[in-house]
Amino acid sequence: MRQLYVGNKNYSSWSMRPWVLMKQAGIAFEEVMVKFDSFGEGSVFKRTMLPLNPNATVPVLVDDGLAIWDTLAIAEYLAETCPEAQLWPADRKQRARARSICAEMHAGFGALRSACVMNIEADMAEQGAIIWRDNAGVRDNVARIISMWSELLADHAASHADGMLFGRFSIADAYYAPVVMRLTRYALPVPADIAAYLKRVEALPGVKAWIDAALVEHDFVAFDEPYRIKR
Amino acid sequence: MRQLYVGNKNYSSWSMRPWVLMKQAGIAFEEVMVKFDSFGEGSVFKRTMLPLNPNATVPVLVDDGLAIWDTLAIAEYLAETCPEAQLWPADRKQRARARSICAEMHAGFGALRSACVMNIEADMAEQGAIIWRDNAGVRDNVARIISMWSELLADHAASHADGMLFGRFSIADAYYAPVVMRLTRYALPVPADIAAYLKRVEALPGVKAWIDAALVEHDFVAFDEPYRIKR
Ligand SMILES: N[C@@H](CCC(=O)N[C@@H](CS)C(=O)NCC(=O)O)C(=O)O
Ligand SMILES: N[C@@H](CCC(=O)N[C@@H](CS)C(=O)NCC(=O)O)C(=O)O
Repeated sequence: MRQLYVGNKNYSSWSMRPWVLMKQAGIAFEEVMVKFDSFGEGSVFKRTMLPLNPNATVPVLVDDGLAIWDTLAIAEYLAETCPEAQLWPADRKQRARARSICAEMHAGFGALRSACVMNIEADMAEQGAIIWRDNAGVRDNVARIISMWSELLADHAASHADGMLFGRFSIADAYYAPVVMRLTRYALPVPADIAAYLKRVEALPGVKAWIDAALVEHDFVAFDEPYRIKR
Repeated sequence: MRQLYVGNKNYSSWSMRPWVLMKQAGIAFEEVMVKFDSFGEGSVFKRTMLPLNPNATVPVLVDDGLAIWDTLAIAEYLAETCPEAQLWPADRKQRARARSICAEMHAGFGALRSACVMNIEADMAEQGAIIWRDNAGVRDNVARIISMWSELLADHAASHADGMLFGRFSIADAYYAPVVMRLTRYALPVPADIAAYLKRVEALPGVKAWIDAALVEHDFVAFDEPYRIKR
């Protein structure tokens, strides 16, 4: 049985991607939760992850003795080994487009990621308003996300009732699910078509299952909480 | 005919990856050179790239009316459309491993990338010694690269005489080729097995062709030259 090592569901945006992908696509796996204590060298988190991944980060997928780290490599591996799940768009051009935006997410959106730390259970609307006013990098990142999503949603609206980025659910939606969490929790301003997509993503059973689990976690990880002193 | 948009060969590490990949694997393409003037909004570079790529970065691969940006998406597209070139390792586990290290490169090694800007024609040994002494992030990045490469080279030494990371040349070698340029130009200390791999990579015809073109470029791009005032 495949095992997926993940961090705290409330905070771990990278873990969320493959977990949501497998859950939503119906790919069976066993979850191994490795809670964040610290990312310092002697931490339990680091000591647990190091034998599986030289960078000692989550997520890691273990399949048949093989440990795969880094979200994008996990997604490609699942797409290859579970072709029936159709994790990438079936059309070659759309698949290239989906890979472009996932690679873009993988290395990009630094301002949004560092200012709007994922925190699923928190209402960060007030902090979001300040960040929005002061942080041009966040505004640029959000503008790019809005234009990317609007274009994709418009192009695929006719092809599939689910209204995902490429019509039916794909790796691209899983890859941007943590961005959905950021936009909603920090209440960043988005147009109506994007607001509707945020709602659709939150309602996906795979995403809802992750959120529900995050809400009952009740940990407070100080280094992931730049804006609060308690939960 | 496929077209690959690249930046200055002396400086553009991201452009180097798909160019070397296609050249070395014998995949035909037409090169479109878009020289760096500035990355400011009104620059010729940005105005040229924007219609092809919303981020206006290089590289971009254009194939049959489709523009693919982001190096990793380009590599996957080529692997899919040119299966005869065997761009990924044929074995599924080795392929997953190759994708893990490429995804790691795609988002990582920030200290090395920012301190040791790629500059193919320059002798940066003096700067390299200072960086090595003062920059713990660079030392950590290089330690990780050495351990990654040593392990892969040892595992695949028997399988293929070429001595590439996965035996025969693959996307992984192309993905780390700019790291080879950094290690050699900044003369960072590496053990003998790694030094031998650096030599083998520099001798690959696809890499050599890129280097030779970089050497005759004779541009001086000030924002890519933190350590020199002229060429
Ligand atoms: N590029 C990696 C990023 C993984 C990552 O940074 N994960 C965080 C948790 S969300 C982590 O494990 N951090 C530990 C650390 O940075 O030491 C991937 O795609 O998997
Ligand atoms: N993640 C991108 C990075 C591309 C990139 O940053 N390219 C540089 C040249 S090496 C560039 O075009 N920079 C222009 C800019 O940052 O505005 C990829 O993999 O293609």
